[in-house]
Amino acid sequence: MKTDQVLHMNEGMGEASYARNSLLQQKAISIAKPMIEEAITTLYCNTLPRNLAIADLGCSSGPNTFFLVTQIIKFVETLSQQLNRPSPEYQVLLNDLPANDFNSIFKSIPTFKHELYNEIQANKIGPCFISGVPGSFYGRLFPTRSLHFVHSSYSLHWLSQVPEGIEKKNKGNIYITRTSPKKVLKAYYEQFERDISWFLRSRAEELVEGGCMVLTILGRRSEDPSSKESAVHIYELFANALNHLVFKGLIQEDQLHSFNIPNYIPSSSELKLQILKQGSFKINRTELSSVHWTHCGGSDNEHKSGAYNVAKCMRAVLEPLVLQHFGEAIIDEAFRVFQDLLADTMSKEKTEFFNITLYLTKQSPSCVCFN
Amino acid sequence: MKTDQVLHMNEGMGEASYARNSLLQQKAISIAKPMIEEAITTLYCNTLPRNLAIADLGCSSGPNTFFLVTQIIKFVETLSQQLNRPSPEYQVLLNDLPANDFNSIFKSIPTFKHELYNEIQANKIGPCFISGVPGSFYGRLFPTRSLHFVHSSYSLHWLSQVPEGIEKKNKGNIYITRTSPKKVLKAYYEQFERDISWFLRSRAEELVEGGCMVLTILGRRSEDPSSKESAVHIYELFANALNHLVFKGLIQEDQLHSFNIPNYIPSSSELKLQILKQGSFKINRTELSSVHWTHCGGSDNEHKSGAYNVAKCMRAVLEPLVLQHFGEAIIDEAFRVFQDLLADTMSKEKTEFFNITLYLTKQSPSCVCFN
Repeated sequence: MKTDQVLHMNEGMGEASYARNSLLQQKAISIAKPMIEEAITTLYCNTLPRNLAIADLGCSSGPNTFFLVTQIIKFVETLSQQLNRPSPEYQVLLNDLPANDFNSIFKSIPTFKHELYNEIQANKIGPCFISGVPGSFYGRLFPTRSLHFVHSSYSLHWLSQVPEGIEKKNKGNIYITRTSPKKVLKAYYEQFERDISWFLRSRAEELVEGGCMVLTILGRRSEDPSSKESAVHIYELFANALNHLVFKGLIQEDQLHSFNIPNYIPSSSELKLQILKQGSFKINRTELSSVHWTHCGGSDNEHKSGAYNVAKCMRAVLEPLVLQHFGEAIIDEAFRVFQDLLADTMSKEKTEFFNITLYLTKQSPSCVCFN
Repeated sequence: MKTDQVLHMNEGMGEASYARNSLLQQKAISIAKPMIEEAITTLYCNTLPRNLAIADLGCSSGPNTFFLVTQIIKFVETLSQQLNRPSPEYQVLLNDLPANDFNSIFKSIPTFKHELYNEIQANKIGPCFISGVPGSFYGRLFPTRSLHFVHSSYSLHWLSQVPEGIEKKNKGNIYITRTSPKKVLKAYYEQFERDISWFLRSRAEELVEGGCMVLTILGRRSEDPSSKESAVHIYELFANALNHLVFKGLIQEDQLHSFNIPNYIPSSSELKLQILKQGSFKINRTELSSVHWTHCGGSDNEHKSGAYNVAKCMRAVLEPLVLQHFGEAIIDEAFRVFQDLLADTMSKEKTEFFNITLYLTKQSPSCVCFN
């Protein structure tokens, strides 16, 4: 099962560009902006790099791909002018899974550079070298000590695979809920532990001394992993839609029992614990924030209902997984029912995503700090 | 005109994967292999790099993309075993114009790694980090002093643009021929000089001290740029095909007069002179070789005629240029007539491509060597 499940996830992430390029993503980068600026200021002043290597992990493809990079370059240019230093060379490393549309990113580079040079004169700024780095961030992607700054937004809640051994044990559910058996919770948590540990270990090897990361992760407020909130609540509603299709005889009960989402939506303390356990990074700052579900939508869909936008966004994320598991015939009906359930919930409850944003600095293995 | 002409070239190179992935390309890498091995041996023994950064410029996409990289990694593994050194980290930087199909390259990485690890045990080899670097090699692509070894095969005969000022001056021709006016020859040569100088200067900035390049370039034996040989002869035959279409009233004479190929097919001494003038590289070795035109074909087309294979290969290279300039309606007829002309020529003459392979090492600006 493992290979298939990884394939599901790969496709899921590859197709997630709508979500990644939604207002949600721009909002997340805006929330993270003060931390990114703090991180870049400390990094720049401490290391004064001639070449600044910035990696965006889970960059997706679309209008938001260069949004972060543009913000960072503009900020570094201001810094270097203030410090009367020459503009550094920028090395922009865009990572996503191999199914991501890198061709489309590469074709949009002239537009990105044109817009950047509209704001900063091209002859005053160091050269900007852009490359695409395909692969899973749950493993090494870059040479040892080659990165200065790592950013990742709305990607780390994706696990490297559906936890092993939970098939048909999480009956009627597609993620952790209050009715999930303990062994399902344990399997999800252990997969999260393994993945996040690999992520941190890999980045620690890749970052230079003093290198840092700003990570925005879809999380939950409660310590209870089945707490009906944030994306956990969304997955519960999608499970309800699929159960409705079982009831109508459109999908087999067994099919639903073997479908689980390769995500883990952690609490802030779960995340911090893993960072502390792994030991390579100092946590400088943590920011908790919430964004209304309706921010899932693109700016072009403001006239549509909130439920429409959320359903469309989640369809972009989930469709490849659903398609491969249940086949094409049920897709439209599943997302139609899901939209109805979303509309009902959103009319009654305060529906928000919960974000955890972390600013971490690589530290020597002997020094472990935590705040 | 400049922008359009650059666009032509971009598309021409982007679509050249058939040619790049023909037997011709494999043959070129086989011819260059002893030089590549000499270059890598010297580089490895002198620098013992923990991270070996290899750039393939004009990598295209297809079965040959990883052919070179596989050869180099296998060779370095043998070297490191002989010297009892740990296997280095490999950084493989694949460059081509943004129109190249990087998505397809990235999706083929698992196959490349699978085949590599069939020959070398995965746990005995250093990690291999692959990235795609879109952009023109007539300018900077990589950070300063970040590369160890640069390879390029059958790409450097493409100019960055059609030389300026030759439109309608090279009547009835599409490249340099015996009937081209002197100002056309001069414009082509000056464009070649500018481009190759930019190429060398950029690579000199990007290579580490002791870094080296092995370049295979489509060239000519004669010092006369209009000498009817190698690819110059092929372009003359294609011009004949287009003139035939003018005669038949399928294209306007003026259209043909304004069509020129953004290539320069240099002689070995022209190339060496430019390297000497630019001054950043020592020429360690030059290899001249010839390959029959029929090697243009893929291994799957061995049962087809030589002229069919050459026409198909050249169509892959030239079609985007021809399409944009003359429109779609004449394409089939142009390449049909071209194939007839190729068949006639190939039945009467010894038709060969001429290759120049160079092994260059970056040197300090004060020391200029030449052999």
